[in-house]
Amino acid sequence: MSDNLIDGKQVAARLRAAVGLAVSQLLITPTLAVVLVGDDPASHVYVRNKIKFTKEAGMRSLEHRLPADVSEAEVVATVRALNVDPDVDGILVQLPLPAHINSDRVIAEINPDKDVDGLTETSAGRLLLGQPGLRPCTPTGCVILAKETLGDLSGKHCVVIGRSILVGKPAALLFLEQNCTVTLAHSRTENLSAVCRGADILVPAVGRPNMVKADWIKAGACVIDVGINRIDDASRKSGTRLVGDVDFADAVPVAGAITPVPGGVGPMTIACLLRNTVLAACARRGLDMPDNLAL
Amino acid sequence: MSDNLIDGKQVAARLRAAVGLAVSQLLITPTLAVVLVGDDPASHVYVRNKIKFTKEAGMRSLEHRLPADVSEAEVVATVRALNVDPDVDGILVQLPLPAHINSDRVIAEINPDKDVDGLTETSAGRLLLGQPGLRPCTPTGCVILAKETLGDLSGKHCVVIGRSILVGKPAALLFLEQNCTVTLAHSRTENLSAVCRGADILVPAVGRPNMVKADWIKAGACVIDVGINRIDDASRKSGTRLVGDVDFADAVPVAGAITPVPGGVGPMTIACLLRNTVLAACARRGLDMPDNLAL
Repeated sequence: MSDNLIDGKQVAARLRAAVGLAVSQLLITPTLAVVLVGDDPASHVYVRNKIKFTKEAGMRSLEHRLPADVSEAEVVATVRALNVDPDVDGILVQLPLPAHINSDRVIAEINPDKDVDGLTETSAGRLLLGQPGLRPCTPTGCVILAKETLGDLSGKHCVVIGRSILVGKPAALLFLEQNCTVTLAHSRTENLSAVCRGADILVPAVGRPNMVKADWIKAGACVIDVGINRIDDASRKSGTRLVGDVDFADAVPVAGAITPVPGGVGPMTIACLLRNTVLAACARRGLDMPDNLAL
Repeated sequence: MSDNLIDGKQVAARLRAAVGLAVSQLLITPTLAVVLVGDDPASHVYVRNKIKFTKEAGMRSLEHRLPADVSEAEVVATVRALNVDPDVDGILVQLPLPAHINSDRVIAEINPDKDVDGLTETSAGRLLLGQPGLRPCTPTGCVILAKETLGDLSGKHCVVIGRSILVGKPAALLFLEQNCTVTLAHSRTENLSAVCRGADILVPAVGRPNMVKADWIKAGACVIDVGINRIDDASRKSGTRLVGDVDFADAVPVAGAITPVPGGVGPMTIACLLRNTVLAACARRGLDMPDNLAL
């Protein structure tokens, strides 16, 4: 294993431990409610991990499992009940929802103060306006990994590839909050490789396996690969494997630091969700954010 | 006068005429309500112009003038009354408010569907998420000027200097919506002049007189100067004059196109406010946006 790897598993474990420490010093027990609809196997695995880590951090986990054929109105009613439940600090609706349910309408129902996924319009507005609020988990994880690697990010040039509302755009704003100069590149960007070579921190988030090559990366740059792509690999028993948006083998010799896929950004998402749950619990009760959870 | 000047007065007049045409083809009369508190002379001049142009475009103008010593609660009550008034399409609270009134709390009261200044958390969230909504006026004016000058902006590299919530950040997102590659630079940016020289479209919005010099500008670039700074000028009768963030005389020979100050971005703000009022009126009533007001 190269010595320039950013070990997302380790950083995530440390963040979960910090969340656990913060929880142990609170006089309340933060509660995360998960709404899981249907039988998507990947969602079930993911939710199981969320529940496990929530409990390990000393928090309470509530689960609402609804059948695949539940009506949108019933999902909305579940969310509304959680909104007004004073014991619930965070509400997470596991996506994707079945096709007959409009996810946007369900998400719009979540009380922004309990929106631990940072997906509501209000959370997005707070992020853009720099107001206190809950930030999306994966982009927050990217910032934490970059800070773990580089320390203060002020003045660094961060290039984010991809402008999704889940990752690209919020990541750009979160790196901006860290006083980075930020460039948002995307499918219409001209000379994309040259733009990327300007980056001190490169954050590909597009979902194209192995797109970013060594010659897209400035020597010594920090590469935070958000892509998780399943590709064919006949040498594996499963016939497939996961790769990022970065051609990892090509990039490792050039990058100053780089996240592997899997084991990079991925593990940070749940850890940031736990962090958000504590932040929501404190903000709702007028308590200060625990110092050890500050970015 | 150089032939590479972008005449904001003329573009704004055309936009106002387009708004007037759109209004004449509607079966309703859009109504813009302005809340003006106190006696700030600049605010009174500005509001007078807003009212004049609102009427010229065939729309209805309502004015609520409140004394400088009005309570915050009374301002909030005025906004709430306008929120529920079915005849009111746009609500504009003229800023700044007197020091004893919390502007954020007042703005937070504005119904986002009537938020023609695009200042509420919800409007910001809609912008970030790419949802339909009302966008801030000055950054929209910047995009319109760039499009008037360059046509399709897709793939152009836009560098915005300044990350204010009023201009810098929304401008970045609006140029991104036009498929620009966007860089947000600011006071902590390293090698700012080099970053700016990468711009096809340069949008300084920092409030530093004459900061941007010729050698910050790529030959042929489009420069949209948002700065409006009053500086001493002993040669003027008033003893002062307005300048932008760009050293205009220095920049004119290098830029492909450049906005003067005054007479560039400034006149666009009110024109975009009128446009927003029509957009709000249509959206509230389930009508399509008039074709001639599309960006």
